[in-house]
Amino acid sequence: MQCDSRSLRGVIPALVTPIDGQGDVDERSLEHLIRFQLDAGVHGIFVGGSSGEVALLDGAQRATLVKVAVGMVAGAVPVLVGAVDTGTRRVIEQARKAVALGADAVVVTAPFYVRPNPREIVEHFRLVQAALGHPVVAYDIPSAVGSRLTPDIVEELAASKLVVGLKDSSGDLVTFREIVRRTRRMDRQGSFPVLSGSELLADVAIELGAHGLVPGLANVDPHGYVRLFHAASTADRAKARAEQDRLAKLFEIISVADLGRIGFTAGALGAFKAALALRGIITNGATNVPLSALNERELEAIARILHETGLAPDVPLHVEVA
Amino acid sequence: MQCDSRSLRGVIPALVTPIDGQGDVDERSLEHLIRFQLDAGVHGIFVGGSSGEVALLDGAQRATLVKVAVGMVAGAVPVLVGAVDTGTRRVIEQARKAVALGADAVVVTAPFYVRPNPREIVEHFRLVQAALGHPVVAYDIPSAVGSRLTPDIVEELAASKLVVGLKDSSGDLVTFREIVRRTRRMDRQGSFPVLSGSELLADVAIELGAHGLVPGLANVDPHGYVRLFHAASTADRAKARAEQDRLAKLFEIISVADLGRIGFTAGALGAFKAALALRGIITNGATNVPLSALNERELEAIARILHETGLAPDVPLHVEVA
Amino acid sequence: MQCDSRSLRGVIPALVTPIDGQGDVDERSLEHLIRFQLDAGVHGIFVGGSSGEVALLDGAQRATLVKVAVGMVAGAVPVLVGAVDTGTRRVIEQARKAVALGADAVVVTAPFYVRPNPREIVEHFRLVQAALGHPVVAYDIPSAVGSRLTPDIVEELAASKLVVGLKDSSGDLVTFREIVRRTRRMDRQGSFPVLSGSELLADVAIELGAHGLVPGLANVDPHGYVRLFHAASTADRAKARAEQDRLAKLFEIISVADLGRIGFTAGALGAFKAALALRGIITNGATNVPLSALNERELEAIARILHETGLAPDVPLHVEVA
Amino acid sequence: MQCDSRSLRGVIPALVTPIDGQGDVDERSLEHLIRFQLDAGVHGIFVGGSSGEVALLDGAQRATLVKVAVGMVAGAVPVLVGAVDTGTRRVIEQARKAVALGADAVVVTAPFYVRPNPREIVEHFRLVQAALGHPVVAYDIPSAVGSRLTPDIVEELAASKLVVGLKDSSGDLVTFREIVRRTRRMDRQGSFPVLSGSELLADVAIELGAHGLVPGLANVDPHGYVRLFHAASTADRAKARAEQDRLAKLFEIISVADLGRIGFTAGALGAFKAALALRGIITNGATNVPLSALNERELEAIARILHETGLAPDVPLHVEVA
Repeated sequence: MQCDSRSLRGVIPALVTPIDGQGDVDERSLEHLIRFQLDAGVHGIFVGGSSGEVALLDGAQRATLVKVAVGMVAGAVPVLVGAVDTGTRRVIEQARKAVALGADAVVVTAPFYVRPNPREIVEHFRLVQAALGHPVVAYDIPSAVGSRLTPDIVEELAASKLVVGLKDSSGDLVTFREIVRRTRRMDRQGSFPVLSGSELLADVAIELGAHGLVPGLANVDPHGYVRLFHAASTADRAKARAEQDRLAKLFEIISVADLGRIGFTAGALGAFKAALALRGIITNGATNVPLSALNERELEAIARILHETGLAPDVPLHVEVA
Repeated sequence: MQCDSRSLRGVIPALVTPIDGQGDVDERSLEHLIRFQLDAGVHGIFVGGSSGEVALLDGAQRATLVKVAVGMVAGAVPVLVGAVDTGTRRVIEQARKAVALGADAVVVTAPFYVRPNPREIVEHFRLVQAALGHPVVAYDIPSAVGSRLTPDIVEELAASKLVVGLKDSSGDLVTFREIVRRTRRMDRQGSFPVLSGSELLADVAIELGAHGLVPGLANVDPHGYVRLFHAASTADRAKARAEQDRLAKLFEIISVADLGRIGFTAGALGAFKAALALRGIITNGATNVPLSALNERELEAIARILHETGLAPDVPLHVEVA
Repeated sequence: MQCDSRSLRGVIPALVTPIDGQGDVDERSLEHLIRFQLDAGVHGIFVGGSSGEVALLDGAQRATLVKVAVGMVAGAVPVLVGAVDTGTRRVIEQARKAVALGADAVVVTAPFYVRPNPREIVEHFRLVQAALGHPVVAYDIPSAVGSRLTPDIVEELAASKLVVGLKDSSGDLVTFREIVRRTRRMDRQGSFPVLSGSELLADVAIELGAHGLVPGLANVDPHGYVRLFHAASTADRAKARAEQDRLAKLFEIISVADLGRIGFTAGALGAFKAALALRGIITNGATNVPLSALNERELEAIARILHETGLAPDVPLHVEVA
Repeated sequence: MQCDSRSLRGVIPALVTPIDGQGDVDERSLEHLIRFQLDAGVHGIFVGGSSGEVALLDGAQRATLVKVAVGMVAGAVPVLVGAVDTGTRRVIEQARKAVALGADAVVVTAPFYVRPNPREIVEHFRLVQAALGHPVVAYDIPSAVGSRLTPDIVEELAASKLVVGLKDSSGDLVTFREIVRRTRRMDRQGSFPVLSGSELLADVAIELGAHGLVPGLANVDPHGYVRLFHAASTADRAKARAEQDRLAKLFEIISVADLGRIGFTAGALGAFKAALALRGIITNGATNVPLSALNERELEAIARILHETGLAPDVPLHVEVA
């Protein structure tokens, strides 16, 4: 599957990584999840990203994840795989494994733990690209890595063909828009794909020129994001807005957790998984160690929101989460 | 080598990882550096930490690093090895390799990239300890990981015997002092080692109860930190202050870099390595990809500071750095 | 002039405060600036806000500013006046003076320097409203005050009628959109005015439900923002986008300053004033003490951008700025 | 009272501003508080600082505060007065009033709300000094103003005699120490007073060269800080440490507040005032609007801590706080 401006578009959900009671990747649930996504009409999938708890997966889990995803998708749509690690050499290690297992593209952030400057960030992508010879998507996620892929950096990455696209999870629509302007200036066809990770401004991102969407919430409601993408792409603004408003309501599931008791990541990713379990898509809503589990009260709040947004649970409420 | 309150004390330099022109670990330089440290009377060494560019080392580099360090030290002092990674399972993978190669203790941070809460951080250390059955040192470095090991967390780690000591690189002397107070309250002998990573408040840290020092700058001047440690430990405050003042002057090497041109990490760790190269301890001052190299002007400034602090370069000024 | 949902709409530029060579308010330039704005068709003006250097104006300057503005506008459009200060009692002092001088509404932030919680922020607005009995506009500007007016806070302020509208200068379109949703839920007519301070997402803000725009850049090009507002309000998206793209280019004037030499505020507000001086609207581009002045190179860059965006300077390039 | 290196030393408590049930300055309580401080042997007082809720005081409150303080002290020790405001002209307005009312020195921060650079910060102090011709103390409090008085800035302020001393409330002992080093290099007598605002590292600050202490907690226990100052100044380290440890325990009063219910400032300053009310020094523990009041549970926790640190309340527990 070639990863370029035609294939990197549409809805590409950033999938969660289902795990079983032993903490291993739950292969059947993962297959079920991917089938659910493909049936909903998604245009690609992204595994091993932030929503996939990439930071918490060991080598065995990562390998299983990619193998199952590639096998299940079977070339129907592109499979993007996170090669998220702290430094260039480590990213190359991860990326090579992903490519060997069939990833159509790897998704790479700036180095973190260290504090690179923009020139060093570009050099990082240059070295990754040179080592791989395979499509790389740049991933801007300052909340996790602490630095930005600025418009200047992205422009250089695009112009030098070091990456085939950008996943923007910065939440900053001003720089997103500036990146769209600049990459279009390079090429009037707008052939450099800019994908938005925003759950709540997905319609606006498409209207401003995003080629596609990579939201974590699309795990739970891929049909909604596919409808939103088509409505926004065809300038049916009223329909896009209505869909976006419903999805904003659904996104409240990530805020039900009591942050005195459970961390932010556990609350948000746990909510995606719990909602999938409540919808009957995966068996077990558990997150990876050392994240805490949602409690009964929080699960009930999630079930209620699913109900209010038209995604009534298919399974009894007291789903097992740990 | 047992890692406990008697062995985790004194000066334990956080060593840089020398690399050669191909980017591999320069084994001869590493041996030379360790010999230099042991001759200076250090009480342990810490490899694969932040000063060792752990975030930028791949698996082969890490393995070589630990093997050479363990072989070279040959049981003379404890060898601490960083098992720095984003999540619990990944830390366990790294830590097992380090232990298999002979690490006396592994040094572990809170999870990062994700956003854990205090309870999840404690759970992380509980799982690492359970999986390893080997000494773990907790590593508080908020500038790199974005969260704190608060006094409450450290108290629980110590009381539950999940870690054998703390390396505090927070720069926050208020919490350092509170941790010393609380761990002494648990055990009047003060048997829980609290090590300070501060370059500039090392004398004060010892006076406030630190068992030892883990400064990156000790790469360049282990003799200075050994003298400072002995002076501060024997309440020879005037001598400790004088040594600390000289080392503060030496520490200015990390600020010579032009941060418009080169990142903070490259400037700081590059300065440690350049100074070691200028002193003739290692062959090559290069840092790992993708970090930029110091330029001639910056190297001259480092040489000048070495001269002013009594560490006149043993080698010609125009040392090769890349 | 009544300040309500009908009057708080459209383009309400956040005016700079022109000063003369002695540092006093340059009354003639201020009148000229206001005439220029009214001629461009703005729907209100906002004096004594962040763009007006409110933090740097003393009592005499503030009084002159309000007097001249109220006199010059003469009821044609609403005059909003910043009553920006650190605490409730001080805000009330400032606000009373502004009201006495004829302000149609005062614009008020959360307390700063101190660290209030949401409940205390609501109490602040309750007390200001009770003391004044005059329209208050809430002002969310976290970059200056360090706290947010969250959707929860704004909803309570609106529901309790403590403020007549919101000026959102947060740069955060997600919360902006949520505030629009919530205030519409209260009142299907959408009678609570939400004004966006964004220079670069002004078209999007209107499309998402903003009643008006309060951009600093409208000082320099009120005609552009008036055109943008009308295009966006009438769903002429292509025209709105083209205008926004041109204004984005113009906004680059705030980035010409060398931040090694001059502070961010001086560079940004100095650029607005320099552009106005270059366009011949005000006499002197100087900012208030202690801000540094732009240099020749920077002024030339601003002139170049004015030229490229169709606002060719009416006056010779070497305008006096201090 | 001349403010210089001989007079700016010792313990100079940053006093709270007692208010009565109507929200006016409670003059009798203020007199009582000052008498209590002078009896304890303090070397100066600082009114209208952060601990004095300066950000929340209007003009009338500020004037009363200074008048009462100057009158009560009657030249016995220096009276420092905060002239804290957002910009140069406003600071000069405040400072002139304070000087006219008898302040021996005014205490001034960098501009805030705006974002100045170091050069503009120095210019700010130059203009304030030129306008006043009266002693100015520089105040580094980044938690409130968002910028730092770096060692470079302080060195220039001291060398150019724009300020007569520094109050360091940065919490950063590394820069504190560097400032002491640099100002001593200028003048071997160390005639530039560096005062530490630290509650918890007061002994260390004195040992590192601080001329004095300006802690908020000294409101509650001036005797303790006077003892600590004398012990640390005479190198009686054991006594200084014991006193500091007791004061660290006492400082826990600022952490009893439930930050879900009440803001940080309200919890901390409210605790100082509540403790003073419990000790019978002031009548009413209330803070200024819009801060929330501590509740019964929190007041009981404060009373308990007073008891445990040897400051048993002189008044019944259920003191009125609002």
